[in-house]
Amino acid sequence: MHGAPTCECNTCYAGHDCSELLLNCSANVDSGDPVYLEPYWQRHAASSAVLVSGWHRMSYRTTGGNFISVELENHVRGLHRAVGNAVVDGRFIVFGTGSMQLINALVYALSPDSAGDGSVSPARVVASVPFYPAYKTQTEIFDSRENEWEGITSKWLNSSNENFIEFVTSPNNPDGLLKSSVLRGSSVIYDHCYYWPHYTAIPAPADEDIMMFSISKSSGHASSRFGWVLLKDEKLYKKALTYMRYSVMGVSRDTQLRMLKIIKVILKEVRGKEDIFMFGYETMREKWKRLNKLVSSSN
Amino acid sequence: MHGAPTCECNTCYAGHDCSELLLNCSANVDSGDPVYLEPYWQRHAASSAVLVSGWHRMSYRTTGGNFISVELENHVRGLHRAVGNAVVDGRFIVFGTGSMQLINALVYALSPDSAGDGSVSPARVVASVPFYPAYKTQTEIFDSRENEWEGITSKWLNSSNENFIEFVTSPNNPDGLLKSSVLRGSSVIYDHCYYWPHYTAIPAPADEDIMMFSISKSSGHASSRFGWVLLKDEKLYKKALTYMRYSVMGVSRDTQLRMLKIIKVILKEVRGKEDIFMFGYETMREKWKRLNKLVSSSN
Repeated sequence: MHGAPTCECNTCYAGHDCSELLLNCSANVDSGDPVYLEPYWQRHAASSAVLVSGWHRMSYRTTGGNFISVELENHVRGLHRAVGNAVVDGRFIVFGTGSMQLINALVYALSPDSAGDGSVSPARVVASVPFYPAYKTQTEIFDSRENEWEGITSKWLNSSNENFIEFVTSPNNPDGLLKSSVLRGSSVIYDHCYYWPHYTAIPAPADEDIMMFSISKSSGHASSRFGWVLLKDEKLYKKALTYMRYSVMGVSRDTQLRMLKIIKVILKEVRGKEDIFMFGYETMREKWKRLNKLVSSSN
Repeated sequence: MHGAPTCECNTCYAGHDCSELLLNCSANVDSGDPVYLEPYWQRHAASSAVLVSGWHRMSYRTTGGNFISVELENHVRGLHRAVGNAVVDGRFIVFGTGSMQLINALVYALSPDSAGDGSVSPARVVASVPFYPAYKTQTEIFDSRENEWEGITSKWLNSSNENFIEFVTSPNNPDGLLKSSVLRGSSVIYDHCYYWPHYTAIPAPADEDIMMFSISKSSGHASSRFGWVLLKDEKLYKKALTYMRYSVMGVSRDTQLRMLKIIKVILKEVRGKEDIFMFGYETMREKWKRLNKLVSSSN
């Protein structure tokens, strides 16, 4: 701004080039900021770089509809096929500004249309403990007439009411357990953001009706705010697209362009020596061993 | 994907390098896609380019809070000071995924907190005709218990109810008129997205309590999905931030980085030979003259 170069640093770092580690900065176990993958991308700095000129892709619309890059959509499908963690054939894809936004888009899409006179019962949004707090906070903030937060799934096990939207996080955040739907007859949103080989074994491609994923947990690019949902039902797909159109007019195309490059690199290296999921797995295992040792040696 | 390079083209263009103009493609007068500024950025292709490596800025959080880049915030303030279209001193700034998202963030922030028992009257959202359809569609889609769309502002001129949220678009979309608030005692959201020198004369910096702007109308980068709001009231600012945090966890940092570069170029050239607002003004004037001539010569 005033002729001085400025760095904006990751948490716990400071200094004019962000190289100073702040000694009194504690580990944050409340948030899953995936900076442990930063060294992987430093190793692939050149191949993962994108150069965007000022005149590049300024328009609201390009090839394809719904503000979704055709090429990025193809690569997202290719990523699932290469990793084997989700069935993509016969599925529609909706992009979101992180899975954060998709949570509400899906709750909106799954809720009944209001008659405006109170005659329609709102959908009841539930999740099992421990759950990702955003399910509750978002449902309460958006606070629509057509849905309301109804707490813990198990409370409703013997309820005859079928008007539920059940969140199932698998692997679960924060305890890592693989989970399944608890209520019958409800709409189930499978949050599969952690269903990648660095977090869990992938015995088979997930094959649910509604599956949510995010780039922050797969490549580590939390800051890009990019997630997607795989949907079987066309009507639901169209309702989710409507939500995306009216809430933000689609995910930033700058983000989409960068994500295309990132996924290209992942695909090129997958199952090779530089497989990002192997790197992620090894790094997490090392951290876990060190943490274990530290905790065991303290009283 | 399959080794073939792919271009995704602006509307009305096709071909392997998007250079083929489709002859049966009609002008779209319903949407304000600002591609007329593309030639300006082609002229500044090198200086406006950003190179983003895969490891750059992956974290949710960097310097500053609320997922807002300190440096970009400074430059947004600098842009308003240089152009003279809005008072920024003593104002808080909230970033949004386009002004589209800020519409709902502000309606949320201005609405009363629900008591959950129907005892709180919802805020009544209104606008004057002709208005930007998203004000209505968004309010209806998000359909919160604390606000509801109540139609045309003038209908409520003699109402004693003060529980209004009034949208004022100035210059107005689509008719370009400068507008002011119609109702007294209501919360007024000034949509100043078109209050830039290529669209209207700027006699004085706007000095309202709530002012909304977007990059799509100032630089032409509609695809980046970036807007901001200038706010006087700290409580309102905090509520709008809460909305942004829980709806998307902040604007894509890829977008913020690109916007920083774009605003730097605008600032460097402003009031010089290559002023983007002068370029925009001249281009629009030429178009208007040609359109006028065409319409005059037809029957």
